[in-house]
Amino acid sequence: MKLSEICEKIGLNFIGVDKEISSMNTLQDADATQLSFFHDKKYINDLATTSAAAVILTADLADKLPEGVEALVVPSNPYLFMAKASQFFTPKLIDSTLEKAKIGEGSYVAEKATVENGAIIGSNCTIMAGAYIGTNVTIGDNTIIHPNVTIYRNSIVGSNCIIHASSVIGSDGFGFAHNADGSHIKFYQNGNVVIEDDVEIGSNTSVDCAVFGSTYIRKGAKLDNLIQIGHNCDIGEYSIMVAQSGSAGSTKLGRNVVVGGQAAIAGHLEIAPFTTLASRTGVTKSIKESGKTFAGFPMMEHKKWLKLQARIASLLKK
Amino acid sequence: MKLSEICEKIGLNFIGVDKEISSMNTLQDADATQLSFFHDKKYINDLATTSAAAVILTADLADKLPEGVEALVVPSNPYLFMAKASQFFTPKLIDSTLEKAKIGEGSYVAEKATVENGAIIGSNCTIMAGAYIGTNVTIGDNTIIHPNVTIYRNSIVGSNCIIHASSVIGSDGFGFAHNADGSHIKFYQNGNVVIEDDVEIGSNTSVDCAVFGSTYIRKGAKLDNLIQIGHNCDIGEYSIMVAQSGSAGSTKLGRNVVVGGQAAIAGHLEIAPFTTLASRTGVTKSIKESGKTFAGFPMMEHKKWLKLQARIASLLKK
Amino acid sequence: MKLSEICEKIGLNFIGVDKEISSMNTLQDADATQLSFFHDKKYINDLATTSAAAVILTADLADKLPEGVEALVVPSNPYLFMAKASQFFTPKLIDSTLEKAKIGEGSYVAEKATVENGAIIGSNCTIMAGAYIGTNVTIGDNTIIHPNVTIYRNSIVGSNCIIHASSVIGSDGFGFAHNADGSHIKFYQNGNVVIEDDVEIGSNTSVDCAVFGSTYIRKGAKLDNLIQIGHNCDIGEYSIMVAQSGSAGSTKLGRNVVVGGQAAIAGHLEIAPFTTLASRTGVTKSIKESGKTFAGFPMMEHKKWLKLQARIASLLKK
Repeated sequence: MKLSEICEKIGLNFIGVDKEISSMNTLQDADATQLSFFHDKKYINDLATTSAAAVILTADLADKLPEGVEALVVPSNPYLFMAKASQFFTPKLIDSTLEKAKIGEGSYVAEKATVENGAIIGSNCTIMAGAYIGTNVTIGDNTIIHPNVTIYRNSIVGSNCIIHASSVIGSDGFGFAHNADGSHIKFYQNGNVVIEDDVEIGSNTSVDCAVFGSTYIRKGAKLDNLIQIGHNCDIGEYSIMVAQSGSAGSTKLGRNVVVGGQAAIAGHLEIAPFTTLASRTGVTKSIKESGKTFAGFPMMEHKKWLKLQARIASLLKK
Repeated sequence: MKLSEICEKIGLNFIGVDKEISSMNTLQDADATQLSFFHDKKYINDLATTSAAAVILTADLADKLPEGVEALVVPSNPYLFMAKASQFFTPKLIDSTLEKAKIGEGSYVAEKATVENGAIIGSNCTIMAGAYIGTNVTIGDNTIIHPNVTIYRNSIVGSNCIIHASSVIGSDGFGFAHNADGSHIKFYQNGNVVIEDDVEIGSNTSVDCAVFGSTYIRKGAKLDNLIQIGHNCDIGEYSIMVAQSGSAGSTKLGRNVVVGGQAAIAGHLEIAPFTTLASRTGVTKSIKESGKTFAGFPMMEHKKWLKLQARIASLLKK
Repeated sequence: MKLSEICEKIGLNFIGVDKEISSMNTLQDADATQLSFFHDKKYINDLATTSAAAVILTADLADKLPEGVEALVVPSNPYLFMAKASQFFTPKLIDSTLEKAKIGEGSYVAEKATVENGAIIGSNCTIMAGAYIGTNVTIGDNTIIHPNVTIYRNSIVGSNCIIHASSVIGSDGFGFAHNADGSHIKFYQNGNVVIEDDVEIGSNTSVDCAVFGSTYIRKGAKLDNLIQIGHNCDIGEYSIMVAQSGSAGSTKLGRNVVVGGQAAIAGHLEIAPFTTLASRTGVTKSIKESGKTFAGFPMMEHKKWLKLQARIASLLKK
């Protein structure tokens, strides 16, 4: 879609060099065919170095962009305008123009499973009844997809993976811009999910797709049942997440992190490798030193938490 | 079903004017064809004003009913007798006598989706493979139902809605009466779910149907993944609920309430408009003043909770 | 599979009397055709009395076995070797050699439901569209399986049960052994789930199958939505579990236990009959006295918890 057309559709007056836009991305990752936006001071230094085709921002920042990057100036709330534009780049759910799915040798696809066009399934896979493999999904070899699993369009699943029944890979991340009247505008989540090899995911677990780029479940990670993985998370190699735990968006777990049952991690954090989070831990800041065990909400080191609980209990003796 | 027949089936001796009963309802909402019951002192004033055909109650209250309303006197536990009667009014899951579903212009219904008889789907909808649209369900225009979503009989879904994979709309509310031997009698949940326009619901979320009447998800509300909505809840316009949060039954959220991740609200409460509940807040009493932010369990204002956590942490210094 | 072949495949040097092995089990429950292992001092007395065909253990314990029981000696970590062997005994997901499913009189099986070979469904059942009834599953009479429910191979479901949409019965328990490099080896979960009569299970709930033997949901128990039941749990008769609660593996609830919303119970515990756990209770030790009410995390008696919360709140006054 032409930049001028996007502007017209989202209510902006376009002045500048018109370009064909392929998709959207962050300031840092956008290429010369992509639209980007500035909405968080944390990324202010990315303005001067972005390779984006155009950037939605407020007037005061327009002169910070490199030459050749078009400034789409908005009065306020660039996030809202970006959300409005996001709908134009959302991949098709169903695409009859794509080739029929390719199924590798020795793979079993139940008659009552669905494999959409453009999908590629490796060899010796088992796709059980009621499983849904979306448009352009890729699955490696020897992977088992249990009944009623849904894998959204463009997801990539590795080899030797097991995904248990009713889990959902690639549902939309939870992102909305807000109008002044309190209503919400969907920020279309146009990224995907990448599940590397040797991953097992339990039943009724949800892994959201990325807004841009990918949500990652790295090699050998094991997720239990009823887990929430927000958009753009990166769950490290060999990490283990126990049932009913969750991570909000854009959080990165190092390798071999263990997340206890019902524990939760806030968004945009980093958890050092070999960290253990006891059941119900609530993490609201990054963990930088690896190999430690934490508990509680607010979170603290596990030993300290145990001591604190003893002190709290002693309040009853007074 | 005749009142006399109901009484016979649930073990009551019927004396009075026989009537045809269409369904069940609360004292307040029942009309002259409906059966009601008294089980909670909170509703004692509704006895005198009810328009019900008949009311199940204990003998001491029989004289409080208006003339023409039949008293079905039970020795104790009217809730148990009402539960026993509830099975006779439960709508059919499958009804071959109803007309075939009507699908609006431009709507796509995957071959492997199911749309039961009596359903009406508007125009330009997308019903993906494995989705189940139950008997007499109504869906507006431009709505997307992702794979393996289940929408129970009689649900109403608005226009421009998105429901993500494996979510369930209209599963039975959790209601049981108890026998003296500790066993439970199902209180059939004969109400429905109403989802208004512009609602988005994430994956693996459960919205229970009402026992009588409707569970509401109001216009523009956005629900994330793995959320629990109990029977007869009313989730206000533009409210936002983050993953793994939940509300027990009959709770009413005002407009633009924000419920953080893993937060929970007990049943039969009212949450004022523009309330924000931080992640993990546990709400056990109504919030009457709008626009405030709460945290903790037991819940308190967020600022107070932060201060309290500092005080608690200082116990370690002693 | 021959003992000698198992040893070869998992990298052990086999010395002893070769035997045909049918499956795996605990020291206590294994019969003369089953392989077992020793990995927890708690079970040391079971070594001398086991009837297993062979036991994986470290050299120091080999002489504790009864005569005729083969010792498969490993340098360390018997659990890891048992996990490696577990893959050889996992039941087939699909078995075309079995007889077609038998469906009892008056039962409705939707055209878009799947019932695998070897399954037996009683009379007057309703199996809704998208439901998946796995290989060798048995279902009693008058049971309703709602859309998109998945029941894994070998599960047993009683009569007069209701299982709501998208719930999963028999997904793999969460069990892994660990290699020295931090990667994980799946301990195949070869047991099943047994759901007795009169059980109701809400939507999006997960009940994992046992590693050996069975996970039990006893007669008349009622489970709400989004609940996690770990492998080898035993949920007692008439117990009630409210939405978003969970139990880790091998925990046994007595009869009429009530588990509040978002409450959680750690693994390998026993909860006395008629115990009530308030919402969000976190149970980390067994409850031996019946009929009491608990709350909090760490858990304490409910009255004490209320008092403690008052004391905690008073910290703000200082």
